[in-house]
Amino acid sequence: MNNIQYQITPIGWVRSPYTQKFAIPRQPHLVPAAKIQIVLERDFRLESVRGLADFACVWVQFIFHEAISEGWAQMVRPPRLGGNKKMGVFATRSPHRPNHLGLSLLNLDKINLENGCVVLHCSGADLLDGTPVVDIKPYLPFIEARVDVEAGFAMSAPSTLTVKWLPHSGVENIPNDIFELIKQSLAQDPRPAYHHFPEREYVAEIAHWRIRFQIDNQIVWINAVQFLG
Amino acid sequence: MNNIQYQITPIGWVRSPYTQKFAIPRQPHLVPAAKIQIVLERDFRLESVRGLADFACVWVQFIFHEAISEGWAQMVRPPRLGGNKKMGVFATRSPHRPNHLGLSLLNLDKINLENGCVVLHCSGADLLDGTPVVDIKPYLPFIEARVDVEAGFAMSAPSTLTVKWLPHSGVENIPNDIFELIKQSLAQDPRPAYHHFPEREYVAEIAHWRIRFQIDNQIVWINAVQFLG
Repeated sequence: MNNIQYQITPIGWVRSPYTQKFAIPRQPHLVPAAKIQIVLERDFRLESVRGLADFACVWVQFIFHEAISEGWAQMVRPPRLGGNKKMGVFATRSPHRPNHLGLSLLNLDKINLENGCVVLHCSGADLLDGTPVVDIKPYLPFIEARVDVEAGFAMSAPSTLTVKWLPHSGVENIPNDIFELIKQSLAQDPRPAYHHFPEREYVAEIAHWRIRFQIDNQIVWINAVQFLG
Repeated sequence: MNNIQYQITPIGWVRSPYTQKFAIPRQPHLVPAAKIQIVLERDFRLESVRGLADFACVWVQFIFHEAISEGWAQMVRPPRLGGNKKMGVFATRSPHRPNHLGLSLLNLDKINLENGCVVLHCSGADLLDGTPVVDIKPYLPFIEARVDVEAGFAMSAPSTLTVKWLPHSGVENIPNDIFELIKQSLAQDPRPAYHHFPEREYVAEIAHWRIRFQIDNQIVWINAVQFLG
């Protein structure tokens, strides 16, 4: 490898309802209810985002910070290929990539100031709480909206599951907007690609709720929920 | 600013007909004839790009390496606003941004091996020769093709100029494909936004040709060309 390195400093940090990697959507836009905030460092004043609110979508470049210690590989197993086919890391959006750089296209809902910090409110997110953001750019549809171009194994959105719950699961205690987020997230099928054990109970933590669920025959069954406070 | 930093190492390098910043297209896709190669570091074997050739377009994340010494600013003057209006740096794709990270969507024409290195051949490029590439990702149209979303001051492609030449300019000596590249590049109006001096002669160097030209009333006049060898 060459010796040249560049120093990248976060310009801001993500606040997200996803506080663990499990059950984060695998791409942006799949879970519209996933709302995050990007809190910019104090150095960046309102001037730095002047004009940005006129854009509906923004590129967020970030570091897959929780994947750094896991390294990277020349080939990875994309979940949508069932976990039994390897693709080159540069043909995927896997976090286990050289430099661990991520790129997500998010809806920009609003921009405001909080305690002197510029905060971008975004939705359709797929980002972990605490993610370091290293750049924000406007989406340019006249360049970047290329409909129907060939996209190998990733031409269309992955299919989703139906979400149901047991009578005594306690889901009625979850506020509506959070339950919507939980349902949309679980419908994405968070299982590792090679897992198909209907008897296995999974545990996800989303927006301070712990959700226990099983997946059988394209249906997610929520067994129990617990508020973590 | 926070103290956290990430080390980014180039995964490859750009070979481009644009050997100086002047006259590089301001976005990808505007100059289809702009063909570049991305030569990956030897660490990345063919396995690392397995499956990528099935994608028509790739994201290239890179460092604006020649802008680093010029720093960055909270606000910049986008060329398409005539140079007399400032926008927040995060509302633009300016190279003078924190971390100097660039993002270009390029057509992927083919992938091959050269002297044991993986080489990606791309077109529609807006990249300087020698640009360090820090990541390559597939373009996902089902997520990233958002037609007609609001895009502030950048809804449509900038208008182009007509390119003509003087009888004794020597353009007939330029090979056809290179002349096409030169014409498409100059049609993008490479002048700094605030320059409107029809008497001023500009000099661009593209694909080893030095081009002298003037711009008057939406017409680029090529005065003389010289092969640089």
